Amino acid sequence: MSAPVQEKQAYEQSGLYRLRHSAAHLMAQAVTELFPGSKLSIGPPIENGFYYDIDFPSTIKEEDLPKIDQRMRELAKLDMPIVRRVAKDRVDAKRIILEECTLGQGDATALYKLELLDAIPEGDEISFFEQRATDKQGKERVFIDLCRGPHIESTKEIKHFKLMSIAGAYWRGDVKNKQLTRIYGVAFDTKEELEHYLNMLEEAKKRDHRVLGRELGLFMFSPVVGQGLALWLPKGAVLRDVLSDYMKDEQTKRGYLPVVTPHIGNAKLYEKSGHIITYKEKMFPFMEDEEKETFILKPMNCPFHIEIYQSALRSYRDLPIRYAEFGTVYRYEQSGELAGMLRVRGFTQDDAHLFVREDQLLEEFKGVVDLIQVTRDRLGLNEMRFRLGTRDPNSDKYVGHPDNWKLAEDAIARACDEMGLDYDVSVGDAAFYGPKLDVIVKDALGRAWQMGTVQVDYNLPERFELEYIGEDGKPHRPIMIHRAPFGSLERMIGFLTEHYAGAFPFWMAPVQVAVLPIADRHNDYAEAIATALRGFKDKDAKLTGEMTGFAPIAVKPSSNLRVQVDDRRETLGKKIRENQRMKVPYMLIVGDNDIEAGTVGVRSREDGDLGAMTLQGFLERAGY
Amino acid sequence: MSAPVQEKQAYEQSGLYRLRHSAAHLMAQAVTELFPGSKLSIGPPIENGFYYDIDFPSTIKEEDLPKIDQRMRELAKLDMPIVRRVAKDRVDAKRIILEECTLGQGDATALYKLELLDAIPEGDEISFFEQRATDKQGKERVFIDLCRGPHIESTKEIKHFKLMSIAGAYWRGDVKNKQLTRIYGVAFDTKEELEHYLNMLEEAKKRDHRVLGRELGLFMFSPVVGQGLALWLPKGAVLRDVLSDYMKDEQTKRGYLPVVTPHIGNAKLYEKSGHIITYKEKMFPFMEDEEKETFILKPMNCPFHIEIYQSALRSYRDLPIRYAEFGTVYRYEQSGELAGMLRVRGFTQDDAHLFVREDQLLEEFKGVVDLIQVTRDRLGLNEMRFRLGTRDPNSDKYVGHPDNWKLAEDAIARACDEMGLDYDVSVGDAAFYGPKLDVIVKDALGRAWQMGTVQVDYNLPERFELEYIGEDGKPHRPIMIHRAPFGSLERMIGFLTEHYAGAFPFWMAPVQVAVLPIADRHNDYAEAIATALRGFKDKDAKLTGEMTGFAPIAVKPSSNLRVQVDDRRETLGKKIRENQRMKVPYMLIVGDNDIEAGTVGVRSREDGDLGAMTLQGFLERAGY
Repeated sequence: MSAPVQEKQAYEQSGLYRLRHSAAHLMAQAVTELFPGSKLSIGPPIENGFYYDIDFPSTIKEEDLPKIDQRMRELAKLDMPIVRRVAKDRVDAKRIILEECTLGQGDATALYKLELLDAIPEGDEISFFEQRATDKQGKERVFIDLCRGPHIESTKEIKHFKLMSIAGAYWRGDVKNKQLTRIYGVAFDTKEELEHYLNMLEEAKKRDHRVLGRELGLFMFSPVVGQGLALWLPKGAVLRDVLSDYMKDEQTKRGYLPVVTPHIGNAKLYEKSGHIITYKEKMFPFMEDEEKETFILKPMNCPFHIEIYQSALRSYRDLPIRYAEFGTVYRYEQSGELAGMLRVRGFTQDDAHLFVREDQLLEEFKGVVDLIQVTRDRLGLNEMRFRLGTRDPNSDKYVGHPDNWKLAEDAIARACDEMGLDYDVSVGDAAFYGPKLDVIVKDALGRAWQMGTVQVDYNLPERFELEYIGEDGKPHRPIMIHRAPFGSLERMIGFLTEHYAGAFPFWMAPVQVAVLPIADRHNDYAEAIATALRGFKDKDAKLTGEMTGFAPIAVKPSSNLRVQVDDRRETLGKKIRENQRMKVPYMLIVGDNDIEAGTVGVRSREDGDLGAMTLQGFLERAGY
Repeated sequence: MSAPVQEKQAYEQSGLYRLRHSAAHLMAQAVTELFPGSKLSIGPPIENGFYYDIDFPSTIKEEDLPKIDQRMRELAKLDMPIVRRVAKDRVDAKRIILEECTLGQGDATALYKLELLDAIPEGDEISFFEQRATDKQGKERVFIDLCRGPHIESTKEIKHFKLMSIAGAYWRGDVKNKQLTRIYGVAFDTKEELEHYLNMLEEAKKRDHRVLGRELGLFMFSPVVGQGLALWLPKGAVLRDVLSDYMKDEQTKRGYLPVVTPHIGNAKLYEKSGHIITYKEKMFPFMEDEEKETFILKPMNCPFHIEIYQSALRSYRDLPIRYAEFGTVYRYEQSGELAGMLRVRGFTQDDAHLFVREDQLLEEFKGVVDLIQVTRDRLGLNEMRFRLGTRDPNSDKYVGHPDNWKLAEDAIARACDEMGLDYDVSVGDAAFYGPKLDVIVKDALGRAWQMGTVQVDYNLPERFELEYIGEDGKPHRPIMIHRAPFGSLERMIGFLTEHYAGAFPFWMAPVQVAVLPIADRHNDYAEAIATALRGFKDKDAKLTGEMTGFAPIAVKPSSNLRVQVDDRRETLGKKIRENQRMKVPYMLIVGDNDIEAGTVGVRSREDGDLGAMTLQGFLERAGY
């Protein structure tokens, strides 16, 4: 068993986990006191805190949270012991729920608890947790909940918590059921931990990629275009190109072959792949021409790459074949699940499919993981771990033979072990056609994000009857590896925006350099500087730079920087503030002295004014 | 009036035009003799020849053409005078059709001619052309056709013709009507002209981009994916990148801003743009979620770019704004109209929309035409002319006010005149929202192709109520320019493949250099050569080249060539033939001597063996 699995189990056995669970009970008690008639459902501990899903008699709002919070603190101080009780049998349990848990607020308030009781397997012990005290006014305060536990010993330990937000949640997570109100809270052992966490949230808010994305001109959404369908503004489009050009170069070096496939295909293609059976709910409505054929907006690129593989006879000498495509796919996510760039309905995967021989699988898999590691370094992400998603043997949502699943899961595990990867096993997290290794990275605030994936697939080659001719002259079946080191450009750019709070590293920044002429008479010089830095290969463009008559602006060829001249008629101060706000890595401020000396006044986003330099000097400073 | 308009009119008044028209009649005469009961419809002259659409009593095949051809020659030699007759009135015309034109083959054979008669406007003269002679056997041979003419004087002038092919064609071009059989023929004044034309066709066949596209590994189609939906194979995907990178660079230099938009959007967006009203037949079936919303696969990018324009308040100082996107769009073309890459159902436009002020329109329009001219030079296309498509005032398929149409048409004409462009006016060829200037290029075989377009649009800005704040502080309406210099990557690459017969220029070739080790022991040296030429910026990749210990393979940095090492265990001769067949511009053959001398044996696609050179020498030879 790997370290992270132990970590998760350790959390579930920790005092903090019990504390958060008890905080959920305390919140429920406060709610039943403040809003009589509330129907409680479930209230588990989660990462950083807890929640409780409640069916309120009337709508409550975020403004009600302080009242609940205050009542919780009052109750906590009563130092109620939290005591476990076991029902004698099912009948006894039902009696406790209806007579004791409801606190006389009516049988209807027991609605969900009775359903939960029904779900407890026959023969299991049925336990309750009870907390009870008499307050200064002599009134008895009590709360009893059907619960497996465990809990802390007394409510007085619940001190460092905060109610955070309200959300809707369907009973049992099913949209066909009633929508309940979920109240989220956080809780920690110490005041310092709570404050640290709340500060982190505050910082995260400032980094919210949806806000920054708009402010920095990266991307936008439009209700007229549709939810979850991003429109990339010029700077975001440049960022996409920078990242995809980087990945393309890396892939070319590693022998990947680019392909480009349509965004739609005949329904038959996805019937054969199994997507229509297992994935239909995530697909957009079909394009049905009743007289002719049905087209599908592609949710995945795999069937297209398979078509290309099958377009020629393949020999063992041709393998591995690695088809790469920045393929835009569309998935019909529930509108409630959409979240900025992190969950969208259309996204561009840095996708590739490797068709490999059995004897190549391990090395190719390692090659992919190596590419992921190299990429993470380049992106400046240091903390990374992996999660191996395997098949849940009790689920029927998977295609293919269990033997193949075993082969694939073993292959991934072996590659990970040989590479000494830190990984976690998550049963039931596989793709429907094969197990996968997901990449988890931590951002600057320590938050974990799932970014990128590698999947081993014995199933699609079988469904599509893929073949290659082996050294023995006979047909053999290749194995497929699906992989996307970034995951998607959307998610990666959303992530990077938050990680860097929009201050992207120099190589990545959409605008790398802003040239600021101090007055109109410096505009020509500013343009000459910009042209030199842009370093277009085209002769005309070069001449423009050389022919301005400004002496020392020679730079090494093809520096190809992304440079903007800010010649608006605004004060220099305003222009500097504006470019700083847009998080441009370097400003080059040019005035009379610079024209005379052939220099630029360099101002760094991080370090402020760096003084006058030659252009070559600046490029060296920028590490270029 | 511009030169090409005169040219077209000149053709219609030429003897050649009459000759071809008479050839169509001659063919119809042969058909009625050979296939009694055939119903004739129309038979006009066209470029290079003529056709006749005929409803045959039973299916005919290409194999029947020689028989018809032979009969035509026999009839031609009868030296029948072709005489014009005028009907007294409509009753007389009907009589002539039923009694004389049918030649006793039954009234049913007059079906289409009677419909044509009905379509002749009241008051117009109704004319027939008759050719008649008695053959050596004493039999009278006659043919009379309802026809406006004009024709040549005698059938004996029809000598240099050839029947080419058979196709299906709907009566009056309407799919709801019966499908007729169209027989195509070509005809010329002289034997030399006919032969030249047939040779050109032969050459064109060899250059067929559908065949070459597959042979050279550029692209493929798959029935499972769907008709007209191309799958780009690795070399074609590289070619796409080369062309789009070139255009992106040019556009960046000219101040274009890249954007990226989804391939689908809410139906409302296209209702507002007017596409749903005027363009629905060309759109894929809608994606309808009955409970929620309807999505549309985008046939055009404009509404998305408009959304981006509207996402912020624009000032007169912000304009012109030029949004560029390599946007893939989908149009549901009739399957019968699909033709390789020249007419597809999904294609990537090198699209851009310029939002300009009235006072900027002329300069911006000229800027676009200049970009088109620069692009054509770079692509090596010398012969280019333009066609101005204007609104047909009698059609209702256009949106917007006639005043705006006039402004837009005048603006284009003025820009063209000021730039001294060679252009032609084609009434009714406008886009539904504005007039357009189409680019017509001639390929190496002299064939004309429509490639690229510029459109001026006053209408969409009005429909979407676009605004900018003018210098006067008041809102003004911008004008839009739609433009695509390539047209689409699909069409352009199809065209370039035929133009260059697959032998793309060095800068464009998917594989620029193939390195051929003579024996296995030369493989490392070949790899070192390839790595040096690839010139990856990455240090590791450079080291691989430097660390091989082979001395003089230093090249200028970032040459970034696309290089393949052909280390298959085949004979050198076979490998050379293979790479020649794949039209790789340069082969570098390396053996023992090369390793010792630090050279490569250069073999050019056009000039064959060029002898041993240093790598630097080769790069100079390649003009790099």
